[in-house]
Amino acid sequence: MSEQKTVTACLIIIGNEILSGRTRDANLQFLGENLNKLGIRMMEARVIADVEETIIACVNDARARFDYVFTTGGIGPTHDDITSACVAKAFGRKLIRHPDAEALLLSHYKPEDVTEARMKMADVAEDSILLENPVSRAPGFQVENVFVLPGVPRIMQAMFDLFKHRLVGGAEMLSKSIASYTPEGKMAARLTALQDSHPDLEIGSYPFSRDGKHGSTIVIRGTDAAEIDRAAETLRGIMRDFGNEPQEVDL
Amino acid sequence: MSEQKTVTACLIIIGNEILSGRTRDANLQFLGENLNKLGIRMMEARVIADVEETIIACVNDARARFDYVFTTGGIGPTHDDITSACVAKAFGRKLIRHPDAEALLLSHYKPEDVTEARMKMADVAEDSILLENPVSRAPGFQVENVFVLPGVPRIMQAMFDLFKHRLVGGAEMLSKSIASYTPEGKMAARLTALQDSHPDLEIGSYPFSRDGKHGSTIVIRGTDAAEIDRAAETLRGIMRDFGNEPQEVDL
Repeated sequence: MSEQKTVTACLIIIGNEILSGRTRDANLQFLGENLNKLGIRMMEARVIADVEETIIACVNDARARFDYVFTTGGIGPTHDDITSACVAKAFGRKLIRHPDAEALLLSHYKPEDVTEARMKMADVAEDSILLENPVSRAPGFQVENVFVLPGVPRIMQAMFDLFKHRLVGGAEMLSKSIASYTPEGKMAARLTALQDSHPDLEIGSYPFSRDGKHGSTIVIRGTDAAEIDRAAETLRGIMRDFGNEPQEVDL
Repeated sequence: MSEQKTVTACLIIIGNEILSGRTRDANLQFLGENLNKLGIRMMEARVIADVEETIIACVNDARARFDYVFTTGGIGPTHDDITSACVAKAFGRKLIRHPDAEALLLSHYKPEDVTEARMKMADVAEDSILLENPVSRAPGFQVENVFVLPGVPRIMQAMFDLFKHRLVGGAEMLSKSIASYTPEGKMAARLTALQDSHPDLEIGSYPFSRDGKHGSTIVIRGTDAAEIDRAAETLRGIMRDFGNEPQEVDL
């Protein structure tokens, strides 16, 4: 059993447009996968409305419970972009115009395009670290364990790639996925026994149907590659016992 | 101003596979849109892991704060499907094998395909209402204001269509979306003034770029169609003031 502490993360997705169904979130999947590669485990994601009290409460809850917190959305120039101010309030810090961010925006926009609304994107919680935005310049910021990022996936991802080396993870979560045309309900008892004999692994079962045939993909996750291999070998045997050939899959 | 109470909902998405990035959730967008048509407002969504204490705490928090709670995921036949048992515990009720669900499953599976694991899908919280599953038979259930649904989008959606007439909504949230090639940062001050003069409406601004040109879509939401029309007319004028032709869009 690995003695290494699990490093955890929470994503707070801020935006009425996600809750109304107008926009489909793409940031959870990206962060879930990419944090995992760094040995950081996404434990929870919350999608919340553009409401000050909700954002403040959610940030304060999450930063106490998880090692890292990421927020996406609500850091643009318009009246509905209230995330930066709310994060500052959550920390009891002043919202200040960061001189480096201000200089960056002033050099990015033509003088006639500078508006007070755009300059608002230089406002961050006091004593925070700017997060570089290589796409559209307006930075995000980090305050303690909270990373404040934009909602546009392309921009968020480009920013993440620039600061991810500063995140400190634990053991990487490894996984192996094995599929067969054995429906999960048929081999469930064997899967339970497999899980019970590998308490340090997480064994998940996901049904699928393809060409009218039902099957399931079994995902084995853990930090110990050798133990995953042992469980996978047993699993292949279970699938063959049901007359189906196991196949290793990417997902 | 509408005096009608806002009817609220929360979605709890249960599943390690969503948090790890393996599977991209599709249920939030479907429920957000379809509840909205019924006059029910999705206020929050939480994606949580397959962990008993987490599920129980989250269900109890949500059912106290929102009119309707929907859970998706974790009601299949395998060891990692713990949602039904957790919901029963959250309500302090026994988990019982529902006779109608049992009969349904026994008639659905060939005798040689009946397993105890599959019959577990007939276990629901005591005194709950079964939710019909027209696709794969295994039902969901409703206990008080909590609806327990499967994670597979196709099945969840088919079930939702069968019980949605029983949900009682408030005023439908109407919306109008108007796009132009005016970047949001240029007209932000005017948008703030527009929002201030229509406090009962929600005005959201969403940037886009197309063919290398930046623009923004402004979404006006509210329950009063006439007021939305008035705000939209003002908005068109603002966009024209910036030299861009407004265009009504579907999203």
